[in-house]
Amino acid sequence: MNTRTLDQIRAASPLVHCITNYVTVNDVANVLLAIGARPIMADDSEEVEEITALCAGLCLNIGTLNARTIPSMIAAGKRARVLGHPVVLDPVGAGASALRTATALRILDEVRPALIRGNISEIRTLAVGSGATQGVDASAADAVTEENLMASADALRTFAARTGAVVAVTGAIDLVTNGSDCYAIRNGRAEMARVTGTGCQLSALLAAALAAVPSDPLAAAAETVALMGAAGEIAWVQMGECDGNATYRTRIIDAVYCLTDEELAARMNIMKL
Amino acid sequence: MNTRTLDQIRAASPLVHCITNYVTVNDVANVLLAIGARPIMADDSEEVEEITALCAGLCLNIGTLNARTIPSMIAAGKRARVLGHPVVLDPVGAGASALRTATALRILDEVRPALIRGNISEIRTLAVGSGATQGVDASAADAVTEENLMASADALRTFAARTGAVVAVTGAIDLVTNGSDCYAIRNGRAEMARVTGTGCQLSALLAAALAAVPSDPLAAAAETVALMGAAGEIAWVQMGECDGNATYRTRIIDAVYCLTDEELAARMNIMKL
Amino acid sequence: MNTRTLDQIRAASPLVHCITNYVTVNDVANVLLAIGARPIMADDSEEVEEITALCAGLCLNIGTLNARTIPSMIAAGKRARVLGHPVVLDPVGAGASALRTATALRILDEVRPALIRGNISEIRTLAVGSGATQGVDASAADAVTEENLMASADALRTFAARTGAVVAVTGAIDLVTNGSDCYAIRNGRAEMARVTGTGCQLSALLAAALAAVPSDPLAAAAETVALMGAAGEIAWVQMGECDGNATYRTRIIDAVYCLTDEELAARMNIMKL
Repeated sequence: MNTRTLDQIRAASPLVHCITNYVTVNDVANVLLAIGARPIMADDSEEVEEITALCAGLCLNIGTLNARTIPSMIAAGKRARVLGHPVVLDPVGAGASALRTATALRILDEVRPALIRGNISEIRTLAVGSGATQGVDASAADAVTEENLMASADALRTFAARTGAVVAVTGAIDLVTNGSDCYAIRNGRAEMARVTGTGCQLSALLAAALAAVPSDPLAAAAETVALMGAAGEIAWVQMGECDGNATYRTRIIDAVYCLTDEELAARMNIMKL
Repeated sequence: MNTRTLDQIRAASPLVHCITNYVTVNDVANVLLAIGARPIMADDSEEVEEITALCAGLCLNIGTLNARTIPSMIAAGKRARVLGHPVVLDPVGAGASALRTATALRILDEVRPALIRGNISEIRTLAVGSGATQGVDASAADAVTEENLMASADALRTFAARTGAVVAVTGAIDLVTNGSDCYAIRNGRAEMARVTGTGCQLSALLAAALAAVPSDPLAAAAETVALMGAAGEIAWVQMGECDGNATYRTRIIDAVYCLTDEELAARMNIMKL
Repeated sequence: MNTRTLDQIRAASPLVHCITNYVTVNDVANVLLAIGARPIMADDSEEVEEITALCAGLCLNIGTLNARTIPSMIAAGKRARVLGHPVVLDPVGAGASALRTATALRILDEVRPALIRGNISEIRTLAVGSGATQGVDASAADAVTEENLMASADALRTFAARTGAVVAVTGAIDLVTNGSDCYAIRNGRAEMARVTGTGCQLSALLAAALAAVPSDPLAAAAETVALMGAAGEIAWVQMGECDGNATYRTRIIDAVYCLTDEELAARMNIMKL
């Protein structure tokens, strides 16, 4: 598989509307600029429909959801859906509070996003009502492993088919499925979990990818998941002895900025299950 | 022209109140510290008048405006105005939504800021009601070029005269005018647009500059616009092969921190039109 | 004193709930990850009690407090208190507005935090009603110096005894007391004040420390204050000629990430008064 997603994002330079958390929002904006897309953050209910109409894709991230922004997410999501724009849902912390779980389920139901990206505990919470979410991190008990890979893929296929969305679960092994085909991706490094927001960044990049490659959302999603992992691998190689997670954070975005489609193709480790 | 704005900011170390967006707020705080000013962010309507009274300048940035913060901006702006503190308006995304345009116009009308800084599409939206704003970016159709420079300057002079504000438009060529004199500034690099928030940072620095150099806001503004561009130039020279926009972001703020008035004077490319 | 706080935080990997300001929130999340703890930010009143129940500690930071988040802080704080979780209060800007002072005092009264960390002007505002807070910075008039050290310590002892909290005042000399014992800490560098949020980061680390070392909050707090200073010292050594406060920001978090308990023990400059 190579739909040259990276080149297509750079060629299209999609404007991506993000209603996202304030923890990682700066990195989300910079990683969108790094890949060649253009971010706009707007979350007031009075303007979100108008803003999303200007854009090519929408990313809804519930990381710091609140009573003011939840209606904005729903309104922007519905409008984007009517306009045929891809909507990505990042259900940050689903399972950690009733509000997060209910809001994510409500977005699934009312917006019907084109793609859902989360860790396995968040996705299990939405799929079967019982992920062992640990704050905003996945539980080890839920992890996708080589041993449970096929069973995990089947569970995700069922969830994808039911929601009509591409589902992307990220962890040590990433899985991306549209309900029939499923890809396992083995890129990235465990140390990426020590940088806040690499998942948020990926979700925003997925919105850019689906906007730029409307013909094949599954392939675009799988390649973008691999791209984020590849950026983490490249960035890690550049780490010096005194570097920690703050430098790693910078280097990952830099790696997205500098990445070529050829380099990505050489690194991508995507296997069809 | 050299009013030694940088040295004056460092000598005065003005406290600058920012009601700003949550995307770039950390960089805004750090660039104010880099230049020798001191930031304070406060946006609750119950405290903004008291906070702004403690400060020497106010920066109003509508990048993530909302129903809660718009009244805070108006209240703080009016209070600062009464106290004779310079108010800078950064009309982020004016033209991208009715809410943004209306809020920026309302601030112009009710607060009468000392300075307005935006990209050309934002400023055209406020000046003539028809900028082709692309999300938070300027449209190429609106760009200030060598060809339309004098006509652009005249249009901005008219807007500056009407609002009573210094108007600073930043892009490939920057223009700064108080309605009579107009300066064209050719500093900076195109890659600065790949870092989110360089405009937001400049707006906050302009509030610091006007607070520190009350006798000559036009010169202080022109020099500060040149300073931000010079920082972008210096930072670019330090970029390595694997560096991208995240490292550039860090290096730009570092360049402001390390910049001397002599270095700035040598780099400033300010021409009176 | 060496309770091996750093090793204990890494072993426990406590989940820390932060209701914090949007200026420095990303650094707060990354420094918690750097030390081996896990952050979760959540501030909607509908979910904060549930979120804090999942966590081992809570950090309340009023840096950008507002009408929506103040009730969330109170609710989360009370719930954490009932559950026996350590609550840290960072009264950012207490003294700069009536809202900040009143909110900090209300949290002291209704939540009874386990630890209060601030600069001397903020703490004096809460202790005696008259700190000369300059925005979010301490006033030179209030500074803890070698000359007034014993008197400052006594004033803080009184405040700590009255509130039942460990009190940590940071500045050129840091003081940490539980009302009887008091430690003076001489780590850190003055340049840390040029990076926004090093205080916010320390407050979050203190919540992690108290969660990981419940048996000795005073020692855990003193060591964590020294740890943050040591990180600032180590980071400073790595600064190059063109580096400024933005690189220093990154290097400080990196230093926390790379720090060993042995290195910390060698650098800690903690003296019992």
